[in-house]
Amino acid sequence: MKMKKFINDPTQLTSELLEGFALAHGDMIAVSPERLVTRVRPKSPDKVSLVTLGGAGHEPALSGFVGEGMLDISVVGDIFAAPGPPAVLEALRQAKRDAGVLFVVLNHAGDVLSGNMALQMAESEGIKITKVVTHEDIAAGPGTPDADRRGLVGCVALYKIAGAAAEAGKSLEEVAAIAERLNNNMATLAVAMKAATHPATGEALFELPDDEMEIGMGQHGEAGTGPSPIRSADETAAIMMENLVKAIGAKAGDRLLVILNGAGATTLMELYIVFRGVKKYLDQHGITIVASHVGELLTVQEMAGFQMFAAKMDDELLDLWKAPCNTPAWAVK
Amino acid sequence: MKMKKFINDPTQLTSELLEGFALAHGDMIAVSPERLVTRVRPKSPDKVSLVTLGGAGHEPALSGFVGEGMLDISVVGDIFAAPGPPAVLEALRQAKRDAGVLFVVLNHAGDVLSGNMALQMAESEGIKITKVVTHEDIAAGPGTPDADRRGLVGCVALYKIAGAAAEAGKSLEEVAAIAERLNNNMATLAVAMKAATHPATGEALFELPDDEMEIGMGQHGEAGTGPSPIRSADETAAIMMENLVKAIGAKAGDRLLVILNGAGATTLMELYIVFRGVKKYLDQHGITIVASHVGELLTVQEMAGFQMFAAKMDDELLDLWKAPCNTPAWAVK
Repeated sequence: MKMKKFINDPTQLTSELLEGFALAHGDMIAVSPERLVTRVRPKSPDKVSLVTLGGAGHEPALSGFVGEGMLDISVVGDIFAAPGPPAVLEALRQAKRDAGVLFVVLNHAGDVLSGNMALQMAESEGIKITKVVTHEDIAAGPGTPDADRRGLVGCVALYKIAGAAAEAGKSLEEVAAIAERLNNNMATLAVAMKAATHPATGEALFELPDDEMEIGMGQHGEAGTGPSPIRSADETAAIMMENLVKAIGAKAGDRLLVILNGAGATTLMELYIVFRGVKKYLDQHGITIVASHVGELLTVQEMAGFQMFAAKMDDELLDLWKAPCNTPAWAVK
Repeated sequence: MKMKKFINDPTQLTSELLEGFALAHGDMIAVSPERLVTRVRPKSPDKVSLVTLGGAGHEPALSGFVGEGMLDISVVGDIFAAPGPPAVLEALRQAKRDAGVLFVVLNHAGDVLSGNMALQMAESEGIKITKVVTHEDIAAGPGTPDADRRGLVGCVALYKIAGAAAEAGKSLEEVAAIAERLNNNMATLAVAMKAATHPATGEALFELPDDEMEIGMGQHGEAGTGPSPIRSADETAAIMMENLVKAIGAKAGDRLLVILNGAGATTLMELYIVFRGVKKYLDQHGITIVASHVGELLTVQEMAGFQMFAAKMDDELLDLWKAPCNTPAWAVK
C-alpha cells in the first residue's frame, strides 16, 4: 500500500520541507545548509538570543516559532530525530551576543545529548549560554524525576514568554529566571486516539484498537497510563485537567494559561468542545483561565489526539505571553 | 465502532463548539443565541460591514475570521448545513450601517437559498447591501457557468482583502468592486487523499481506495475529475497549478497570491513540500508568487487532502492582503 501523503522522495522529506518553508516565509526566516532556521528581521545586537533544537515532522514546531518575539535560531534534525552536535554548535556560534544565549532543550534523549555536546564546545569557545530543559510531561506520574519527564508543547509557551522577555531587553539572568519560573509552574498531558504513520517509512508509530484511547501517550507513541475506552470530551477534559492542576499545585484563586495543542488529525471543533469542558472543570474549582491557545502548535503528523497544557501565571508571565510576536506560525498584535 | 473523536452529545456539536470558541476568544468575538459570531472590538460606525454564512465543521472557517480587518458577523449553520434565513436576516439587521453591508455567500445550494431569502427581506427593510457570491472551484472544467462552480477557500482571501478595504474606510461601491475584482481573478482546485467522518453520524463522507487520490473532489466528497493513482507532491503541484493558471489566465510576468489550505489531516510538512513544487512550476512559467499562505483555513474534519488557490494580484489587492488583521484564526501585524 502506498502512503497517503503528498511527498516526493521519502529520504528528502526534511530538505524539501525546509525548502518550501523558506520559500513561503522568506520575509521572516532563512534556512542555512546546516538546517538552521534563522530569524532575518530586526535583530537588536543587544538582545539575548534564543536557540532551540529538535527533529522535523512536528510542524509548525519548532521552526515555525522563529521570528520577532520568539526564537532566533532553530536547529532542525531529520524526521523525529535530533540534529547532530556540529549543527547545534554552529547555531550557538551564530547566536553569540554580548547579552548571551538562552538555549532551550526539550527533554528527549537525542536532543539532550546533542545539546550538551554542543553546549560544552560552545562554552569552551567563550560563548555565554544558559540552558533551560523543558520536561513538563506528567504522564509518568507524580514524583517522577525531571530527567524522566519529556518535553512536550510547553516549549512553545516558553519560547513565547522568554522570547518576549529577551525582546524587551532583559538580561540573560532575567530571561533565564523567567523561563525557569514558567518551567517550574507548567505541566502537559497528552492523549492519543489514532496513530500517525512515519512519513519516511509508512509504518504506524503505534497501535490503538478502534474502541480505545490512551491518556499520557507521548508524541511518538511512548506508553502512557494504559488504554481506556473512548471517553466523552467532558470526561477527558476533567480527567486531564485534574491531573494537571494537581501537578502544578493550582488552587482556587490561581490564574492559568491553558493550551490545547492538536496532534494533527483532531479537529479544531473537537478542541473547542474540550476547551469548554476544561473551563467547566476549572470553574468548579475556582481557578481562572486568564490566557489560552487552541490550535496546532506541535503536531505528530496525522495523529489524532491532543496535548493539554496548563501553567500558573503571574502578572509578569501574563504580560510576556500577551506581548507582540511575529513568526511564521504565530502572530500576536 | 465508536467514533474516534473528542465529543459529547453528537446532536450538540455546533452549540458546544461555539460555546468553547466564545470562551477561548471572548476578547475578539461574541456568540449570540441565533448563532451569530460577532466582532466585539473597535468597530467604526462609519465602516462598511462584512457578513457571511455557512455550516459548522470546517473550523477555523468561517467564524475564525471574524475580527479586525476581516468579517463583522458570521452566521453559523449546523454541521455542513446552511443556517436558516431568520438567523441570516438577524445578522444583516445587526450589521446595518449607513455605509452599507457587503454580504459574502459561498456558492453552495443551501447557503445561496438562505442568503437570498434573508437578503430580500433585509432590503425590503431598507438595509443597504451588496452581495458577492464566491464560485471559484474549477473542478467542473473550463466554461462551466458560475452558478455551477462551488465556493471553496477563496472566500477567506476575499474576507481578508475586502475586509481590509472596509477597514480602510472605503465606500460600499469601492469595497464591492475590489471584492469582485478578486472574485473574477481567483480559482481553487481541491485534492482528496482520505475521507473524513461526519462528526454527528460517524459515517465516512466518501470512499477512496488505498492506492488512489482524486483531484477536484469537493469538500464534502462531491465528484471531481475521477480518481487517479497516488502521485508525487511535485506532480500533484504541477497538475493542479497548471489548471489554476489556465483558469485565471495567468501569463509570464503576472503576480500571484497562492494559498495551500490543508483539509485537516494533511500535515504542514506535506503542504510545504507541495508549495516547493508550486514554486518550481511557476518559476518555469515566469510567474511570480508575491504572497502566500500555507496552513489550515477551511477544513473538512480529518479529511486528508488540500485546496490549492491562486489569484492574480495588482498593487491594491496585494496591499490589502498584507494589511493588518486580528481574528481568532489569523493575525497579520
